Amino acid sequence: MDITEIAKAAKNASIQLAAAKSDIKDSALAAVAAALKDRAGDIVEANEKDLAQAEKDNLAQPLLKRLNFDHTKITEACAGLQSLINLPDPVGQTLDATELDTGLELYKVSCPIGVIGVIFESRPDALVQISALCLKSGNAVLLKGGSEAAHTNRILADIITDSTVSSGITAGWLGLLETRADVAEMLDMAEFIDLIVPRGSNEFVRYIMDNTNIPVLGHADGICHVYVDAEADLEMALNIVADSKCQYCAVCNAAETLLVHRDIAKEFLPRAKDALEARGVQLRGCKQTAKIIHVVPANEEDWRSEYLDYILSIKIVGSVDEAVEHINIFGSHHTDAIVTANKTTAARFLALVDSANVFVNCSTRFSDGFRFGLGAEVGISTNKIHARGPVGLEGLLIYKWYLIGTGQVVADYTGHDAKKFTHKKIQRSNVPN
Amino acid sequence: MDITEIAKAAKNASIQLAAAKSDIKDSALAAVAAALKDRAGDIVEANEKDLAQAEKDNLAQPLLKRLNFDHTKITEACAGLQSLINLPDPVGQTLDATELDTGLELYKVSCPIGVIGVIFESRPDALVQISALCLKSGNAVLLKGGSEAAHTNRILADIITDSTVSSGITAGWLGLLETRADVAEMLDMAEFIDLIVPRGSNEFVRYIMDNTNIPVLGHADGICHVYVDAEADLEMALNIVADSKCQYCAVCNAAETLLVHRDIAKEFLPRAKDALEARGVQLRGCKQTAKIIHVVPANEEDWRSEYLDYILSIKIVGSVDEAVEHINIFGSHHTDAIVTANKTTAARFLALVDSANVFVNCSTRFSDGFRFGLGAEVGISTNKIHARGPVGLEGLLIYKWYLIGTGQVVADYTGHDAKKFTHKKIQRSNVPN
Repeated sequence: MDITEIAKAAKNASIQLAAAKSDIKDSALAAVAAALKDRAGDIVEANEKDLAQAEKDNLAQPLLKRLNFDHTKITEACAGLQSLINLPDPVGQTLDATELDTGLELYKVSCPIGVIGVIFESRPDALVQISALCLKSGNAVLLKGGSEAAHTNRILADIITDSTVSSGITAGWLGLLETRADVAEMLDMAEFIDLIVPRGSNEFVRYIMDNTNIPVLGHADGICHVYVDAEADLEMALNIVADSKCQYCAVCNAAETLLVHRDIAKEFLPRAKDALEARGVQLRGCKQTAKIIHVVPANEEDWRSEYLDYILSIKIVGSVDEAVEHINIFGSHHTDAIVTANKTTAARFLALVDSANVFVNCSTRFSDGFRFGLGAEVGISTNKIHARGPVGLEGLLIYKWYLIGTGQVVADYTGHDAKKFTHKKIQRSNVPN
Repeated sequence: MDITEIAKAAKNASIQLAAAKSDIKDSALAAVAAALKDRAGDIVEANEKDLAQAEKDNLAQPLLKRLNFDHTKITEACAGLQSLINLPDPVGQTLDATELDTGLELYKVSCPIGVIGVIFESRPDALVQISALCLKSGNAVLLKGGSEAAHTNRILADIITDSTVSSGITAGWLGLLETRADVAEMLDMAEFIDLIVPRGSNEFVRYIMDNTNIPVLGHADGICHVYVDAEADLEMALNIVADSKCQYCAVCNAAETLLVHRDIAKEFLPRAKDALEARGVQLRGCKQTAKIIHVVPANEEDWRSEYLDYILSIKIVGSVDEAVEHINIFGSHHTDAIVTANKTTAARFLALVDSANVFVNCSTRFSDGFRFGLGAEVGISTNKIHARGPVGLEGLLIYKWYLIGTGQVVADYTGHDAKKFTHKKIQRSNVPN
């Protein structure tokens, strides 16, 4: 099948999958888990082929680690499937219900979006996780994994397809794309694909965003800030800055820039320098910073840089408003934190920082679906519509309006003898059968 | 100011407006209403200039009617402002709250999207309504009206700007664009504009959608269907078809295609023909239809046509599934209705039709924000993300995540001595101060 056929099949399957009963979807997820265990040997064998090739190709160690899909990873994937089975069906929930008039009832009901295109790098566990999330939420999915995981992705996609279709899910709901050319075609298929979820490096996500008219859920950059206010507890600030920068520096919610109020800069910066340099962090600073501690000079490019490394840029500011302005101009609207004991200052920061996640007195590293308690995480979004910040299953859902009447026509509700709408809230939570 | 400056000013103002207190926004809306009344004479005078020019240019009668902004329209606009003032502030609502751990609380809080670009044709009342909706929801707005309403739009924008800025709203929150070249530039300004709401003809909306990477809220086509099932009450079906087609045929939620189950076609079609032709509707039909009643032959192009006129295409189908398939392929995912007494058939139709509005036993013409009881309507969306169907104020809102801690860092929640997250729902409805 060529990619257009795969996409068309996914669109067709999505209609049936949207109407699939909860127990069918859950037993399909259970069948996937059973099949992954049954065929663990074959999966590991396929993965070893990919790993061997990757070693031959001198893939970097972190990438090799992400590519690995061994028995432990299979067990983890099965546990993930089980926790998804345990969740209530997010589809078919009545979000709102209104009587427009006697015998004319309006229901706003959650439903899947349709066909989700997911593009991810290396990690084969992402394939299992995202297709399971799509199935639970009633969406068809087109998947494109990293070419270095081709053998692993192929066997996983086959296993998931076979076990779900045997469980009664419409064939075609999952399509595997394998080449870069496939991706380029996919980005052009607004007719069949309703949402793209890219997972990978910022360059990769930016490429996707810049090359499609299909809505994209995700974030390109994670340029996160910690602002240490004049009224900060400096010990707390040191901890938060160190954690935000160093706890895992290669991820989107790690801090890249430290903003320091000038009133505490002389006291705070030398302590921060000691603590951060002890952890191997290189400091770059504005001119004011350089007057207090020895740093590499920072320029405007630093304010726009996502280092994803043990590097931190530092700028001294005169007020919370100046910090907010810097963040809104140079940040990526992802996650920004203030450290302050002053509640008014904190409230101002919360209200004025235009980011998905705005934190007070805690590490930027908390912005994460698991830590937020969302259950499964679809991704972290810096979009201004639909879903923002860490996105759980609800990011894969939208709603439809059902209006159930008994013969009503609009003509009766217009003109001088017009019937009136009652617009009464209905408490009943289900669409009547 | 050139358009980039106007857009940049709107972006800057949007940050302050997002944090504006409810009473400031409401008193600004009240000031707009007062100023509209005060300056009614000037407004009508400006409008008369536009009307005179439009008559000289031989503008069609319906367009002239839409262009008119007289004392009655001003009174209506003021009533609209008052009902908006009466609504609770949609910004700052806590949508969800979770304790992640003792002293570490997560709040999901509604907030404005940012800068909304609104492009509309003729009607100057749209300018007042949409800028008021944006203000209430804390969004800055860039407005481009029809050039035929230039004088009216300019005075309205001036009045709204002056009265809101005097009430304490940040200057620059409302920008008026005046030329087609401005619109082309606007479509390219993803940096400053977060959402575009186009109001106008389907060609116009399609042009916008095809020429911007900024998210667009709206619909291009409204190809709506009524399916009359084998188990329909035929009297009810006649009423619903006539209303869906004729009650106001020039709008997006009017029916364009009638699907009829073959088992009742012989009985239903002659009656439908009489009723519809009596109302001046031209019928176009498939080959099966033509065997029963005299019609203009319909071809595939008819199934894809939004006539917006007294024309209806008719197709005979063998089952609800065939009706659904036709609707999903040829429809525009806007509004589709079934007439049936069979609840199982109705449920199948509701589940399988992939449209924003799916109706049972009532007219397609009900899909409208006012009839749905949404209050103000921003537009009708056929998008699959963010907002679908008739969209009220909530379509102009998104949310931010606030995490309020007491010094927590992620390092304490990892490794073997890891602290555990509590993930307890918080009932409190406000972010603590």
